[in-house]
Amino acid sequence: MAKPKLQIVKIGGNIINNAETLSTFLSDFAKLDGYKILVHGGGKRATELANSIGLEPKMINGRRITDEANLEIVTMVYAGLLNKNIVAQLQQNKCNALGLSGTDVNSIQAHKRIVKDIDYGFAGDIDSVNHNAINVFLQNEMTPVFCAISHDKNGQLLNTNADTIASEVAIAMSQLYDVSLIYTFEKNGVLKSIEDDHSVIEHINSKSYIQLKEDGIIVDGMLPKMLNCFNALEKGVSEVKIASPSILNEPNQSHTTLVL
Amino acid sequence: MAKPKLQIVKIGGNIINNAETLSTFLSDFAKLDGYKILVHGGGKRATELANSIGLEPKMINGRRITDEANLEIVTMVYAGLLNKNIVAQLQQNKCNALGLSGTDVNSIQAHKRIVKDIDYGFAGDIDSVNHNAINVFLQNEMTPVFCAISHDKNGQLLNTNADTIASEVAIAMSQLYDVSLIYTFEKNGVLKSIEDDHSVIEHINSKSYIQLKEDGIIVDGMLPKMLNCFNALEKGVSEVKIASPSILNEPNQSHTTLVL
Repeated sequence: MAKPKLQIVKIGGNIINNAETLSTFLSDFAKLDGYKILVHGGGKRATELANSIGLEPKMINGRRITDEANLEIVTMVYAGLLNKNIVAQLQQNKCNALGLSGTDVNSIQAHKRIVKDIDYGFAGDIDSVNHNAINVFLQNEMTPVFCAISHDKNGQLLNTNADTIASEVAIAMSQLYDVSLIYTFEKNGVLKSIEDDHSVIEHINSKSYIQLKEDGIIVDGMLPKMLNCFNALEKGVSEVKIASPSILNEPNQSHTTLVL
Repeated sequence: MAKPKLQIVKIGGNIINNAETLSTFLSDFAKLDGYKILVHGGGKRATELANSIGLEPKMINGRRITDEANLEIVTMVYAGLLNKNIVAQLQQNKCNALGLSGTDVNSIQAHKRIVKDIDYGFAGDIDSVNHNAINVFLQNEMTPVFCAISHDKNGQLLNTNADTIASEVAIAMSQLYDVSLIYTFEKNGVLKSIEDDHSVIEHINSKSYIQLKEDGIIVDGMLPKMLNCFNALEKGVSEVKIASPSILNEPNQSHTTLVL
């Protein structure tokens, strides 16, 4: 029997930062038919809150370090302020949203990142996703909304990359569903030229990805995102796209589709 | 057929404020057999966070007013920091906790308190509890953990009294379960003399309550708590107790039982 379709949509911080863009996105997401899951990133509010209480961001080699004080900040902002306001707006739009962090029903279990060169502090690398619990929610007409917090099952919350949460949840759910994973962000897709929003690369496979990387077209934050995409495809996710959030409303708009 | 038993336990801010007391309580709560729900209050962290970002608490006639900035604070602290750390500790103790605010699956719908003499701001008065959604969680071996945030189904989160959330959830669930509601706090129960922790009044009914009120034995914050207790008993909750958190471990310890 064919597996039922499940759409997993990730929105990034830049969409969350703009109240109007977020509101339009949530209205579009609420209208999506069938099973769906939302994963949201952090946005600038965590940095603003940290600044307002005088916390200095800790960076090593350009990477953010999550010490205890910063873990409290992201727990408050991601799991509290952002997650509950997103859920409230989805409820307003008649989508029966359920806000979750990875500790809720042990939905996303992780371990504190092993210290090699750098101690990232309370950063989580995912070990397992509780697909059975998430399936209970979906089968009861609830729409899970994940923030980027996981836990280690020993009482410790962990700051966890939202792109990775989206791909790991997608992989786990692909045991039960035909999963389509859509990463939305402020551009129309992966661009040939960062200045030209019309220069969307419509298909990227693992071979062309290597070339695009060598040519310096795929750089910086797009590199780990692409690894999450290919990881999802390799482990059972049917379809992975990178697109602007308006793709929910206009599926035929220009976007990037990843293929193996 | 007899309804299955459900225990609903509320912990107050003074228990949450002490990490050791909270840890003992959560370990005891995790060991409770059968269906159970936890409701937690706020504690001092919200006030501390408000102070650290320079927010002045707004009080009118001794009552706290929830303006927009303070609503953000309580959403971050109650639904984020406290709720997720409590859930993580319960998960550590092998209790399959699920953190919830009232907006999640529209579990607690409220309206912004009507302005009569005082505008309390974003304070919520509860209209309905979604007992069917909560029942889905219970029937799937999940333990709901409610913080004191509700919503109005129009996108607005609302700060809501945790004692009232406990009683309204208890009343709603009594349609499906034989509900026992336990309010735990730092005393052993309602005391004849506030200085003497051994002076627990073991039974209070609606008649003796009036006398205790007239005698000035039940005063201040205990008055609305008692109203929540009697309201619960009148509307179908089987049993209501006021006790110290250690009652979970030692059910025979001295405590107050409310009767109609």
